[in-house]
Amino acid sequence: MTISTEIRELNDNSFWGHDVIVEDDVQIGKYTILHPGTRICKGSRIGSHCEIGVPSDLADSKGLTISPHSLIRSHSVFYEGSRFGDHLTTGHRVTVRENTIAGSNFQIGTLSDIQGHCEIGDHVRFHSNVHIGQGAKIGNFVFIFPYVVLTNDPTPPSNNLSGVTVEDFAVIATMSTVLPGVKIGKDALVGAQSLVREDVPAGMICVGVPGKNVGSTSKIKLKSNGESAYPWRRHFHRGYPERVVNEWKEEFACPD
Amino acid sequence: MTISTEIRELNDNSFWGHDVIVEDDVQIGKYTILHPGTRICKGSRIGSHCEIGVPSDLADSKGLTISPHSLIRSHSVFYEGSRFGDHLTTGHRVTVRENTIAGSNFQIGTLSDIQGHCEIGDHVRFHSNVHIGQGAKIGNFVFIFPYVVLTNDPTPPSNNLSGVTVEDFAVIATMSTVLPGVKIGKDALVGAQSLVREDVPAGMICVGVPGKNVGSTSKIKLKSNGESAYPWRRHFHRGYPERVVNEWKEEFACPD
Amino acid sequence: MTISTEIRELNDNSFWGHDVIVEDDVQIGKYTILHPGTRICKGSRIGSHCEIGVPSDLADSKGLTISPHSLIRSHSVFYEGSRFGDHLTTGHRVTVRENTIAGSNFQIGTLSDIQGHCEIGDHVRFHSNVHIGQGAKIGNFVFIFPYVVLTNDPTPPSNNLSGVTVEDFAVIATMSTVLPGVKIGKDALVGAQSLVREDVPAGMICVGVPGKNVGSTSKIKLKSNGESAYPWRRHFHRGYPERVVNEWKEEFACPD
Repeated sequence: MTISTEIRELNDNSFWGHDVIVEDDVQIGKYTILHPGTRICKGSRIGSHCEIGVPSDLADSKGLTISPHSLIRSHSVFYEGSRFGDHLTTGHRVTVRENTIAGSNFQIGTLSDIQGHCEIGDHVRFHSNVHIGQGAKIGNFVFIFPYVVLTNDPTPPSNNLSGVTVEDFAVIATMSTVLPGVKIGKDALVGAQSLVREDVPAGMICVGVPGKNVGSTSKIKLKSNGESAYPWRRHFHRGYPERVVNEWKEEFACPD
Repeated sequence: MTISTEIRELNDNSFWGHDVIVEDDVQIGKYTILHPGTRICKGSRIGSHCEIGVPSDLADSKGLTISPHSLIRSHSVFYEGSRFGDHLTTGHRVTVRENTIAGSNFQIGTLSDIQGHCEIGDHVRFHSNVHIGQGAKIGNFVFIFPYVVLTNDPTPPSNNLSGVTVEDFAVIATMSTVLPGVKIGKDALVGAQSLVREDVPAGMICVGVPGKNVGSTSKIKLKSNGESAYPWRRHFHRGYPERVVNEWKEEFACPD
Repeated sequence: MTISTEIRELNDNSFWGHDVIVEDDVQIGKYTILHPGTRICKGSRIGSHCEIGVPSDLADSKGLTISPHSLIRSHSVFYEGSRFGDHLTTGHRVTVRENTIAGSNFQIGTLSDIQGHCEIGDHVRFHSNVHIGQGAKIGNFVFIFPYVVLTNDPTPPSNNLSGVTVEDFAVIATMSTVLPGVKIGKDALVGAQSLVREDVPAGMICVGVPGKNVGSTSKIKLKSNGESAYPWRRHFHRGYPERVVNEWKEEFACPD
């Protein structure tokens, strides 16, 4: 473990402030800045040109800990005052503001912009360029695809913020907007380029501008074999822990 | 006042070209480049990994002055040939091209992309990831929310560019597109994920794809107290000068 | 020609790995990283804060060559395993993942995100913030405008990926989404903020959410002179080689 007690420049041209802790088996990219109060836990890699632990008066707690076995790609900016489980993985140029509380195995795609003051479960995956407004509550195993915006102000601009809720296993396809206070139910699917104005019940499909609930996801079949495409955990297991995948296999096992 | 007459490297690992002026009480982030002809006025802070005053043959004037008390966050790129009032504030990774002429207290959100050759009034606020096409004319106190695009080419690609006009106090909600030459009137509201093809009269709401003018903004009420949400300056005052807020309070004062 | 055989820091604060080749008449910006196996060919300029040739296990081939007379603007990230023709030009903060195979004179706008495993012809132009999903096949002289997403997963998330095809001279206007496996025909036009679910035949216009084919592009006239705006090569020639423009002039010559 390396503990830096004063500002210094590393051999490889990254900068550490004082009160920075870098644990064993960590790589820090060139031209990356670790602000005071940052801790990078064992087995993590931080890309080049990042800024980690940006100080902020808006942060509920001081400093920032990047949990073990995380990978933060280049040009990303993380403010202080957030918490993440292990195996955080990001694309390039991600922004994560203060007071983002997320579980393990969180994936954040390139250019995504998390405005902070939000809660995110385990195994959540954001693709590129996802925008998460403050106050969002996101469950476990949620998928959000590129250019989706979760809003929070029903009468912009105002001080009446109301975040979006997304329950476990829900999927929001690309270029969709979810209006303030809306709840996307468990196993629900929002189709591409939809404007979601009302709650989407569990297991339902919402599509269109404005979005309409058009039936159960069970009617959508996989092209490859004609079986149900949803809940997606019936067939899509890439990158999830073996324990979890085995539960899913049991949940959807055929009787024969 | 510091005047740099030759290229050199600062102690803190930012770079200044020749003919750079950095006034008193200024902070320049690490790994930031100030190009020749840049002036950073008193009380301003420039984040890390920025490029300020990028030279360009397209610029109507040489050099770039960042006005007093500005804050430019990390990874931003400003070309030469623009002008800003004081208290410019930006998020991260903002791009501002040549010949952007903006007033005071201009806020530009993370990842916003201003294509230049445009006019912007005082107290304008862009949230994250706003795209402003060339030729836009934006009034005072305008709000533009994430992933809004102001276009300028009615028959892309062509040389017949026609910018968008947005008048004072107008609001454009997230993920909307405004087509070339359209005028959004004073106090108008464009709803989320709308495609604005025709002018929106003052004080009207436009929603949908294609966008339709569906009535006066006066019918939209605040959730908190049931009073009119628009014009928004009736109730939303955060960050505006006291003098301005007092005018608004007088404008909308109740008779009792 | 400069051949670097060990990691070193340049005078101007960029980094080269070993096995990097920088040909004559090349400029490399400050704080830019050239990974091992990178070759920058003659007459090219790489901006500041870039990462070129990022190593990846997903790359079909090792290393990355930036062809002659290319211009990569600041904060861009290119992975190894892609191929480009000469005169590649990018905006700022572009991401290009592994196995992108593109022709000559390829222009990529600021913030665009090319996910790799795709094929792109000659003289293709992407404006800002274009997102290209894996498996896309894009012809020659294609124009794609800001915030367009080419998708590839009909039942997200799944392993049944099916890329989008865009044929020669086609135009996709801003904020449109193209669903998986869809083909946009030669000379076709997708209007702004459209959701393209079905193939668009050659020379047809598709608009709306969901997108509908509403007729021939020949009915769209230029504002300037009332002549047909499409195929756009009738009137728009900026930046194309004289040889190509002369062919276009001949193709659309009036009989008198």
